Amino acid sequence: MARKISYIFLCMNVTPLLAAAASQACSAQSDAKCSQTGEWNGEFFPGIPKIKYEGPYTKNKFAYKWYNAEEVILGKKMKDWLRFSVAFWHTFRGTGVDPFGAPTKFWPWEDGTNSIAMAKRRMRANFEFINKLGVDRWCFHDRDIAPEGKTLQETNSNLDEVVKLAKTLQGNNIRPLWGTAQLFMHPRYMHGAATSSELGVYVYAAAQVKKAMEVTHYLGGENYVFWGGREGYQTLLNTDMEFELDHMAKFLEAAAAYKRKIGFTGTLLIEPKPQEPTKHQYDWDAATTTNFLRKYGLIGDFKLNIECNHATLSGHSCHHDVETARINGLLGNIDANSGDAQTGWDTDQFLTDTREATMIMLSVIKNGH
Amino acid sequence: MARKISYIFLCMNVTPLLAAAASQACSAQSDAKCSQTGEWNGEFFPGIPKIKYEGPYTKNKFAYKWYNAEEVILGKKMKDWLRFSVAFWHTFRGTGVDPFGAPTKFWPWEDGTNSIAMAKRRMRANFEFINKLGVDRWCFHDRDIAPEGKTLQETNSNLDEVVKLAKTLQGNNIRPLWGTAQLFMHPRYMHGAATSSELGVYVYAAAQVKKAMEVTHYLGGENYVFWGGREGYQTLLNTDMEFELDHMAKFLEAAAAYKRKIGFTGTLLIEPKPQEPTKHQYDWDAATTTNFLRKYGLIGDFKLNIECNHATLSGHSCHHDVETARINGLLGNIDANSGDAQTGWDTDQFLTDTREATMIMLSVIKNGH
Amino acid sequence: MARKISYIFLCMNVTPLLAAAASQACSAQSDAKCSQTGEWNGEFFPGIPKIKYEGPYTKNKFAYKWYNAEEVILGKKMKDWLRFSVAFWHTFRGTGVDPFGAPTKFWPWEDGTNSIAMAKRRMRANFEFINKLGVDRWCFHDRDIAPEGKTLQETNSNLDEVVKLAKTLQGNNIRPLWGTAQLFMHPRYMHGAATSSELGVYVYAAAQVKKAMEVTHYLGGENYVFWGGREGYQTLLNTDMEFELDHMAKFLEAAAAYKRKIGFTGTLLIEPKPQEPTKHQYDWDAATTTNFLRKYGLIGDFKLNIECNHATLSGHSCHHDVETARINGLLGNIDANSGDAQTGWDTDQFLTDTREATMIMLSVIKNGH
Amino acid sequence: MARKISYIFLCMNVTPLLAAAASQACSAQSDAKCSQTGEWNGEFFPGIPKIKYEGPYTKNKFAYKWYNAEEVILGKKMKDWLRFSVAFWHTFRGTGVDPFGAPTKFWPWEDGTNSIAMAKRRMRANFEFINKLGVDRWCFHDRDIAPEGKTLQETNSNLDEVVKLAKTLQGNNIRPLWGTAQLFMHPRYMHGAATSSELGVYVYAAAQVKKAMEVTHYLGGENYVFWGGREGYQTLLNTDMEFELDHMAKFLEAAAAYKRKIGFTGTLLIEPKPQEPTKHQYDWDAATTTNFLRKYGLIGDFKLNIECNHATLSGHSCHHDVETARINGLLGNIDANSGDAQTGWDTDQFLTDTREATMIMLSVIKNGH
Repeated sequence: MARKISYIFLCMNVTPLLAAAASQACSAQSDAKCSQTGEWNGEFFPGIPKIKYEGPYTKNKFAYKWYNAEEVILGKKMKDWLRFSVAFWHTFRGTGVDPFGAPTKFWPWEDGTNSIAMAKRRMRANFEFINKLGVDRWCFHDRDIAPEGKTLQETNSNLDEVVKLAKTLQGNNIRPLWGTAQLFMHPRYMHGAATSSELGVYVYAAAQVKKAMEVTHYLGGENYVFWGGREGYQTLLNTDMEFELDHMAKFLEAAAAYKRKIGFTGTLLIEPKPQEPTKHQYDWDAATTTNFLRKYGLIGDFKLNIECNHATLSGHSCHHDVETARINGLLGNIDANSGDAQTGWDTDQFLTDTREATMIMLSVIKNGH
Repeated sequence: MARKISYIFLCMNVTPLLAAAASQACSAQSDAKCSQTGEWNGEFFPGIPKIKYEGPYTKNKFAYKWYNAEEVILGKKMKDWLRFSVAFWHTFRGTGVDPFGAPTKFWPWEDGTNSIAMAKRRMRANFEFINKLGVDRWCFHDRDIAPEGKTLQETNSNLDEVVKLAKTLQGNNIRPLWGTAQLFMHPRYMHGAATSSELGVYVYAAAQVKKAMEVTHYLGGENYVFWGGREGYQTLLNTDMEFELDHMAKFLEAAAAYKRKIGFTGTLLIEPKPQEPTKHQYDWDAATTTNFLRKYGLIGDFKLNIECNHATLSGHSCHHDVETARINGLLGNIDANSGDAQTGWDTDQFLTDTREATMIMLSVIKNGH
Repeated sequence: MARKISYIFLCMNVTPLLAAAASQACSAQSDAKCSQTGEWNGEFFPGIPKIKYEGPYTKNKFAYKWYNAEEVILGKKMKDWLRFSVAFWHTFRGTGVDPFGAPTKFWPWEDGTNSIAMAKRRMRANFEFINKLGVDRWCFHDRDIAPEGKTLQETNSNLDEVVKLAKTLQGNNIRPLWGTAQLFMHPRYMHGAATSSELGVYVYAAAQVKKAMEVTHYLGGENYVFWGGREGYQTLLNTDMEFELDHMAKFLEAAAAYKRKIGFTGTLLIEPKPQEPTKHQYDWDAATTTNFLRKYGLIGDFKLNIECNHATLSGHSCHHDVETARINGLLGNIDANSGDAQTGWDTDQFLTDTREATMIMLSVIKNGH
Repeated sequence: MARKISYIFLCMNVTPLLAAAASQACSAQSDAKCSQTGEWNGEFFPGIPKIKYEGPYTKNKFAYKWYNAEEVILGKKMKDWLRFSVAFWHTFRGTGVDPFGAPTKFWPWEDGTNSIAMAKRRMRANFEFINKLGVDRWCFHDRDIAPEGKTLQETNSNLDEVVKLAKTLQGNNIRPLWGTAQLFMHPRYMHGAATSSELGVYVYAAAQVKKAMEVTHYLGGENYVFWGGREGYQTLLNTDMEFELDHMAKFLEAAAAYKRKIGFTGTLLIEPKPQEPTKHQYDWDAATTTNFLRKYGLIGDFKLNIECNHATLSGHSCHHDVETARINGLLGNIDANSGDAQTGWDTDQFLTDTREATMIMLSVIKNGH
């Protein structure tokens, strides 16, 4: 089971289309569609039906043309080859901001707050979206789905409240492809989480991972992901790389021990990325991360989550990094996105190049799943 | 006069050092050091003296080691070769945010608002900073120095109020190296300003440039800059590049006409950049921008502001783009920053590489100034 | 007529397949198939029939699946939209050498010499190849098709002898898409041709262009190409870019005058490339080259030959540079090749990405041809 | 001893200066200065004295300004920190050829042949050069120093003859920093050596390494280097990466076993490079190579030879890759060259950037040598 390969479905570009019919905002100013308790009245995507497979010649915009979930290919259903997952943050927390521009993307149900009521409303939107798409996986960072409180205790309590709702909304068929702790946005993590030079930050990060793993387990998640966006350096002049990597290894070792302790049977995944936000991230690419796992004796406890755009930023094709993970026995998950061949940015676009997608599927099939 | 070359002094990295002694915040919560009228009591950089030249062997951290303003080199004072300018936004509006992280940089006098009182307080900090550095130039975007209002009229009125204070604080010796209109942050500019497909946006941008040029003129600015950060495309599939460039030319033509109308004798500068925020910016590099000016008959009205990090992002050395501007008779100004050789980002760091700096000075000297 | 757009068909990858049946070499050692006079007995590609369109479902390896020359699309035959041309050097002079490796590609008729007899034998192979492919254009450098002699006179005489044969072999239907002078291989051009600092080299290059233009004219060529591979610099420290560009402009001005003098009515094309072999080539990209043509008043005499891999090396998509040429009224020809998104090299591969090819065809159609 | 770090001194740029006085060629045509037996009469670099340290203010072009071999720094002589080595191929076999140009660099003693007499003459030039520079290390590929024969036996015999001379010329003070087998130039290696899909090629490569290691041992070499220039792929579509890496591991395992068998106590080094000549080389960077060594249990037998330009081509600073090797306990040698920040090529220039050089020395000092 640990070797099942899945796909994250980045819903960023799809949702604006679905939401076109919705028009009124449940904002602080005009809360027309919000009830007293902060609930949204009616559907989030009104007029949008459940999306079905209708074949390549359909004229229906709200239909799958090629993805036929139940069709059997090479002895397996398409939905089992391509286990799409809705990424909560791309779909429901992205604002269209860029380093030179203010937010440009607004959902009618957003009220401008980061309240728990708002978090729960968003979660309902998420599950309506998932159900209408007909997929059965989602994925999240702890801080996407529930607001940070004044203390860790309050933050965890917020998370519990939202996760409880998510559990109900999941029903029997939906579960997380993975959960993760977001260890990069808060200023405390500006110099790293597991590789921070401040003990308090290290400990806080550990507490956050502990909780995020617990809720992933509670929700029946298949994997738990580590993306070390701030685990790296801006300059080696003030960084002791060896020391920081030792710390990171201890951190991950403790996480693996805690996984066993709570009986979580999902796979722990590390997602390589060469840089951004740091100038140089320690989990540079599949080979670098594999070397790290081998050096610190962690290779039995972790697999890799290969993100295509990260692979191309590190100078490889996505196919190369997927193959590198596979032949090291570490291909755990694929974030099948793509970048832009002319820029050096993490544009995180849908993978629409059929040639590259075909190459990646070759690796998935070779991997046996 | 139009051929004078100047340098922008990016103060981003210097100011945290200067501010180390200050500790209390004039925030909404604790306004200990703020008076009733929003004024800041006392110095913004207490304990920091005026910075002077003390030679390379000084132990004083608050001293120039190499920059000796009055020293004559090749028949000209150092301060006339290197006309440093404090960039208002880098120094006073940067928050240390990145695409994956929240703000990490805080000034004690910031109260968390974007009020006019706050804008005026910041302007006082700016001039204390400039005076302590001993430089005599500064530069700004309209939206850095004064808050946007609900209408253009209100916004212009806000700007007038702050500019009036700046005029007073400038005294007789300080003036803007340049001013500019910030045409990229507001959502209305998400698809461009002069190249937006919406008429209303084009007109709004024109009104904003008109006002920004007026206040630059009022403050005695030497140049007025156009940086077309959103004048480009994300994909050519939905972009008529020829049409958009025609619009951009008309826009600049009108700006040049308005300059003559109001008697502003400063130089109009275009600052090339290959990309970011758009995937492909029309003012890609010096040669591309020069071709644009030639095609539309604008070559007599504009010069170029070469930013080193932009040059390297477009595949050239900074020296190459400075030389390209020079031999086309268009070298107007230099933003002597630098990037990082291993990333494809606009990191906008100080130019600390003496080899590259030497090359650039060669061009400045060849240019006759 | 000058606005006709054509494609160069890089035959590099196709020919090894065609030649598979041939096995004996006409070498100095074993000249079994070479007659006394250096002729090759029989076909060069024995057993290979004329390639025809057979539709996408043919099992015949020697058939066109999609290219149906006579099929009319948007009012024009496919062969008039896609005017393929066999590149002599890629097809018949490439040896498979790379900077770390010796030649790996051998033709059975090559005898290891650079004799005139060998040159004529190759020319016969070229036309057998062209006729079997069913295309009607070819292109060449002067030095590809005939050996350099000890003096310019001897070299020109060699060229005349081979060109006379080519004229005969062309018949009524085949003609050059373009000819050009190869101004980069000989050591005399190590510091440039039109931008060399040595007068003798400049003059020699001019004489070479004069002759190459004459033979292109004689053969009925549609275009004459300038690719300034050595017109650039390794470092600006020892280069006066302005001076060199002035020289290059004079050179091209003289070439255009000579074109008129001899009544050659083909289009003069400049092929941009950012770098390689020089660190920085003056004809960096379409916009840079257009600026050059505008500055020196050459814009009426030249158009551009956009090579896709060169465009991507300069940081643009191929589509971008084709569009830039088009909207400046300078789209003369397209070398529809492609590179590799992960390396910074001129790999000069066939353009097999249907998405990119579609974008380029959009520009060709917009251009009116 | 195995942890000693050394520098390769790329002499490419130095030698033309030294050779300026020499003018006559010992060619097939004019063998004025060659004796009957192919010997060169007199000095190779006539008029050039032994280079000595004269301090930073010397006016003598043939003097060291900063490198003072005997000066003690941090408890060690400068010559022991910086163990410069003359690279035979860069200095004596480079011809100035590039992918678009013929050779431009000629030595007066070269006669245009690849004979054994010529090889011995070159070897004498090499040692005159080394002695005049005052360094005590050199490095070579087997095929640089002796010509390939018709059979392996003949080739080995050629090598023995030249190596015997080298042994004599070395005297007591000079020895190889390293030797290596050149496994990339001959067409047999076009698809790899240890990763070739042809058994015969694999075996031939093994035989070549065996012999090269023997002669390195015979000459008292300190290290033996593996640079797998052809061990990689052009496309994954026709490559079984796992299979090829298994083969490469077996190959290296056998080499390590042979080293022990013959009693060679030097260090075996692998030199990472991301690409060129292949699109993707298996020894991509320090981390990738370290992962390979760990996976196949080879980590005790090999160290790394970090080449700066290779590091920057793989997306890292040189300092990063040196540190990566160091903290994995694998820093064996440094090729302290540099590339060009604007091109994606292996330009293999001298490292003249004092900032980068300082960073690298930091790692060398941390490494304990």
